[in-house]
Amino acid sequence: MSTNKILREKKPLVHCITNYVTVNDVANSILAIGGSPIMADDESEVEEIAGLANALVINIGTLNRRTIKSMVKAGKAANDKNIPVILDPVGAGVSSLRNEAVKNLWREIKFSVIRGNLSEIAFCAGEQASTRGVDSGAIDDEKFSAKEVAKIAAKTFECVVCVTGAEDIITDGKKFAFVQNGVPEMSKVTGTGCMLSGIIGAYAGANEKIFDATVDAVASMGIAGEFSFQNYGEVGTGSLRLGIIDVLSKIDDDILFEAAKIRREE
Amino acid sequence: MSTNKILREKKPLVHCITNYVTVNDVANSILAIGGSPIMADDESEVEEIAGLANALVINIGTLNRRTIKSMVKAGKAANDKNIPVILDPVGAGVSSLRNEAVKNLWREIKFSVIRGNLSEIAFCAGEQASTRGVDSGAIDDEKFSAKEVAKIAAKTFECVVCVTGAEDIITDGKKFAFVQNGVPEMSKVTGTGCMLSGIIGAYAGANEKIFDATVDAVASMGIAGEFSFQNYGEVGTGSLRLGIIDVLSKIDDDILFEAAKIRREE
Amino acid sequence: MSTNKILREKKPLVHCITNYVTVNDVANSILAIGGSPIMADDESEVEEIAGLANALVINIGTLNRRTIKSMVKAGKAANDKNIPVILDPVGAGVSSLRNEAVKNLWREIKFSVIRGNLSEIAFCAGEQASTRGVDSGAIDDEKFSAKEVAKIAAKTFECVVCVTGAEDIITDGKKFAFVQNGVPEMSKVTGTGCMLSGIIGAYAGANEKIFDATVDAVASMGIAGEFSFQNYGEVGTGSLRLGIIDVLSKIDDDILFEAAKIRREE
Repeated sequence: MSTNKILREKKPLVHCITNYVTVNDVANSILAIGGSPIMADDESEVEEIAGLANALVINIGTLNRRTIKSMVKAGKAANDKNIPVILDPVGAGVSSLRNEAVKNLWREIKFSVIRGNLSEIAFCAGEQASTRGVDSGAIDDEKFSAKEVAKIAAKTFECVVCVTGAEDIITDGKKFAFVQNGVPEMSKVTGTGCMLSGIIGAYAGANEKIFDATVDAVASMGIAGEFSFQNYGEVGTGSLRLGIIDVLSKIDDDILFEAAKIRREE
Repeated sequence: MSTNKILREKKPLVHCITNYVTVNDVANSILAIGGSPIMADDESEVEEIAGLANALVINIGTLNRRTIKSMVKAGKAANDKNIPVILDPVGAGVSSLRNEAVKNLWREIKFSVIRGNLSEIAFCAGEQASTRGVDSGAIDDEKFSAKEVAKIAAKTFECVVCVTGAEDIITDGKKFAFVQNGVPEMSKVTGTGCMLSGIIGAYAGANEKIFDATVDAVASMGIAGEFSFQNYGEVGTGSLRLGIIDVLSKIDDDILFEAAKIRREE
Repeated sequence: MSTNKILREKKPLVHCITNYVTVNDVANSILAIGGSPIMADDESEVEEIAGLANALVINIGTLNRRTIKSMVKAGKAANDKNIPVILDPVGAGVSSLRNEAVKNLWREIKFSVIRGNLSEIAFCAGEQASTRGVDSGAIDDEKFSAKEVAKIAAKTFECVVCVTGAEDIITDGKKFAFVQNGVPEMSKVTGTGCMLSGIIGAYAGANEKIFDATVDAVASMGIAGEFSFQNYGEVGTGSLRLGIIDVLSKIDDDILFEAAKIRREE
C-alpha cells in the first residue's frame, strides 16, 4: 500500500468543476491529501485547464446550464488526454435538470470512477430509486442490495463505482472492496461526499490502478472522519469538519495500513 | 418549548437559494440544528426542488440576474405547496438591482418570515434608511424605533418580521418577542445573519407556529454565538465561527429553555 | 507603524469581486483585520457598490464571461472615485481566458496594487513564465530574479507590485520591502493568497500610503501564518487555516511592530 506516498510525491493537479457549497472544503481536502486543486468552470477555458491536469472531478451539486456545458467540454478534453475523470452525481434522481445532465455526461464522457450515495448510484444504474435531497438516507423497497446496485452500475458504465454509506462499497464490476471506516456523524457535515470525490481525483491522478486508488481514497476519508470524531465528537460538527481536514493532512501509508478497515472480495 | 425536538425529529428539507459567500456555513448550520439543506439555483430545477422541500430560504446576498429569476420561480412553487418561505434581503437599499429584486420578490411571493438588520428591514418597510453594505451598523436619524420598523414591516408584508441587532426583535405585527442572546463580536464573522435565516428555515419547516419557530431559531443562534464567544472570544474570530456551528449541533430544547433570554409582549 | 490602528478605526468597506472557492475566507479575513467586506458581482450593480466602497479587490480565480464584464465596470467606477484597486491575477498565464481577461483589465483599469506569485507576476510583466495552476511552485529558467520581475511589473503598471513566495517582495519600482514572515505550510491552505489580496484592500482602503499599507498587509498575513503554524503545525491544515483568521483578528500595531520581519531597500 503506497498510493498515498505516490500521491504526495506526484502532487497531481486536480481540475474540479464542483458546487459552490463545498468547493472550499474540496480544495482544502485535495491539498491536505497531497494534491493540487484548480477550480475553473468557464466553458472557454476548461479544455485548457483539463489539458494541464492529472485528473478531472465533475460534481453536479449546484449545476446550472452554463456549467453543464463546461463539464462536457472538460470531460472530453480529459478523455482525449487520457486522465481519469471522476463523477459525483449529487442529487441525481432529484430533478429533471440533474437527470438530463448526468445522462448527457454519460453519453459524452468516459468516466473512470463514479461516486455517490445509494440513491444516486441506483439512479445512475437505471434503477427506480426515490431520493431525498443530497442525504444518504435509507432507501426503502430496493429490489437490489447496495452491492448489487454498485455492480450493475460498474458494469453499465464500465468503470469503478463507489457507493458510500454505513459501509462503503467499491467495485469495478468484478472485484469488490468494502470499507468500514467512517462514522455516521460525518453526514452532519456538508460536503464529506464532495470532499471524498475530490480525494479520489487526487489518488487517481497519481496512481495508475484506479480501483486501488479509489479504495485508499475512501479509506482515507473514513479514517479522517473516524479520528476527527474521536477528538471532536463531543464538541460539535464545526470541529468535526475541521478535524477531518487536519487528519487528511497527516495521513500517510502507515496510517492507512494501520487504520484502514477494508474487506476484499475477488 | 419543543420546537427543536420537533425539528430534529422531522429533519425538514430546507431549499436555499443563497449567496456563495456564506453558503457553506448556512448548509452546516442547517445540518447542525437538525435540518437537511439542499442548495439549488438553476431556473429549470428550482420548482422541482422547492416541491420536495419543507421550507425555502431566499437570500439575495450575491444575487444576479440569473438567480433572481430562480428565486421568483422557487418562491411561487413554495407558495403553491404552502411551505414557509423566508427572505433575507441582504443589502436591500444598497443598489438598484437589490431594491428592484426585493420589490419584485414581494410582488410575486408571499413570505412567512423576513429577517434582516434594521436598515434592510427599514428599506423593506418603505422607510428611507441609509445602509452601509451588509453590516448591522448604527442607523442615524431614524424616525422610528427598531420595534416600530419591525411592526410596520410585519403589517406591510403580513408575515413574521425579525430585526436582528443588539437586541433581536420578532413580531407578527401584534405580538412581540425580544431576544437578548448573542454578542456583538458575532458581527466579526461573516454570515451569522445568513446562517440565522437558514436556521429559521429549518425551524419553520418543522414547526407550524411560524412566530414561535422564528423566536426559537433566533434564540438558538444567539446562544450559539454567546457560548462560542465564552470559549473562543480570546482566541479569535476563526474559532468563534467554528464554535457557533459546534454549539448549534448540540442545542436541544433543554439548552434553549435554560439559556434563551426572551422577553415577550402581547 | 500605525496602519492597522487606522484600519481598525476607519473600518473601510472593501468591495470584492472574487472567486467562489475562497470567498468566505476572504470575507472573514477582511473582517478579522478590521475592514468590512461586501461581495457583489452582477454587472448591473457593481458600479453602485464600488461607489460606496473604500477599496476594490478584483480576483480572477474563478472568472467567467459574466464576471469579467463586472470587473471592468467596477474597476472603472473605482478609478472614477479614486479609491485603490487591487488585482489578484490568479492563474494568469494558465489559460487564454485568463490571459485575455487580465490584459483587458490592464487596458481599462488603473491598479494601485497587483499581487500574485512569481509566475503570475512574471506573466503580468510580459515575461514568458510557465505556470502550474494556482500554486506558487518553483519557476525554472527564469531570466530574471523575483526582485527584477517585481520591479519590471511595477514600472510597467506604474503601481505597487507584490510577489509572494518564500520571501515576499513589495515594490513601487523604486523602493523595495522584503517580508520574511510566513511559513511554507501556508501553501497547503487554499486561498492564503486571496486572503492577502483582500487584506491589502482593507489596509489600502484605510491608509493613503499604498506602499506602506501593502507592506503591513503582507506582514500581517505572514505573521498570522507563522503564529498559527506555531499553534497548529502538528495538528493539521484545517486548524492552520482557522488559526490564520484567529491571529488576523488579534493583530494590532504592537504585534506588527514586534513580529514583522521587514527588510527595506530604497
